Amino acid sequence: MKLNERGLLVVLSGPSGVGKGTVRKALFQMPEQNFTYSVSMTTRNKRPGEIDGVDYYFVTKEEFQKRIKENKFLEHAEFVGNYYGTPLDKVEERLQEGKEVILEIEVEGALQVRDKVKDAVLIFLVPPCKEALYNRLKSRGTESPEVIEERIKKANREFKLAYKYDYIVVNDEVVNAADRIMAIIRAEHAKTERSIHKYMKLIEGE
Amino acid sequence: MKLNERGLLVVLSGPSGVGKGTVRKALFQMPEQNFTYSVSMTTRNKRPGEIDGVDYYFVTKEEFQKRIKENKFLEHAEFVGNYYGTPLDKVEERLQEGKEVILEIEVEGALQVRDKVKDAVLIFLVPPCKEALYNRLKSRGTESPEVIEERIKKANREFKLAYKYDYIVVNDEVVNAADRIMAIIRAEHAKTERSIHKYMKLIEGE
Repeated sequence: MKLNERGLLVVLSGPSGVGKGTVRKALFQMPEQNFTYSVSMTTRNKRPGEIDGVDYYFVTKEEFQKRIKENKFLEHAEFVGNYYGTPLDKVEERLQEGKEVILEIEVEGALQVRDKVKDAVLIFLVPPCKEALYNRLKSRGTESPEVIEERIKKANREFKLAYKYDYIVVNDEVVNAADRIMAIIRAEHAKTERSIHKYMKLIEGE
Repeated sequence: MKLNERGLLVVLSGPSGVGKGTVRKALFQMPEQNFTYSVSMTTRNKRPGEIDGVDYYFVTKEEFQKRIKENKFLEHAEFVGNYYGTPLDKVEERLQEGKEVILEIEVEGALQVRDKVKDAVLIFLVPPCKEALYNRLKSRGTESPEVIEERIKKANREFKLAYKYDYIVVNDEVVNAADRIMAIIRAEHAKTERSIHKYMKLIEGE
């Protein structure tokens, strides 16, 4: 029996190369999960096969900038001349439906979410040691030494931002990390501030 | 891989008759648990078969009162002319060994713990509805209607104190309640304030 019926906004972040995407995929494969994605909005051109509202919401730069001014993004960033962002209203709809919304985003975006949604659950995924992450960045094999060096520097800056998050989860094994995150989600639902309202109704006999 | 090596002080409380003892027993039977009891101190006489340091620490009233003055109890209470209390130093030892110390105590004592140990995890166990608890109090069958009435009144006062706890856990099924508590314990270990210290060591390369 669940006392909190509203979904949780779970922000999964961590240093570049820690394996956020793999852990997110593992979460969506867990039994009894109730997760949903949030479709991002972008100003980049639609690629062949991409569907508006499924892969992204595709909008013009003017439209995007208007939405920034109207405070309609949970977080947004510019990347190689294009905007990317998470629309607030879509996330809110899912949360009201009782879905857990997982945002797998970069550190910069995650900290924007903290400012907008006070009760978001911020999880910082970390490697068991720095070398594990360095090896991972190197073994991708598709990038030049300069790019790899750049990403290692970025990761080193990001490592230090862990203290801004609610939880630190070690990604030693993907399934362990996903298990820990499931436990965090269950615990967060049981938190008094999330469950006291329905509990009081229950006790007063509605 | 666990970033927090110190054990947690978990206070399991809730209204009279909610089934705290049954849930505690279920917790000790969980796989991969690392729980320990805390042996209470009392001024009541040792009964045949009871062992000092196992069932209770048996001390005199003078000794007990001296310890109260010296602030050596996590919580204590008087009951039918005798003192009962949880010695702080024994709990601290277990926590340092990395054990989770479960205190199954009455609401009054639980709130004393909150004042003494800021990072204790306070769990309020509740019935799925008031009637479930009333039926339970009645069905014990060993008490007079007056005593039952008294206990129902007490439970009704206790119900309202949920907001002072960190988590509210519904005891719909014992195994579900124990599962939720296990999730809370895992999540608490991953909390940034508990794990940042070791994480920073890891990242700085010790």
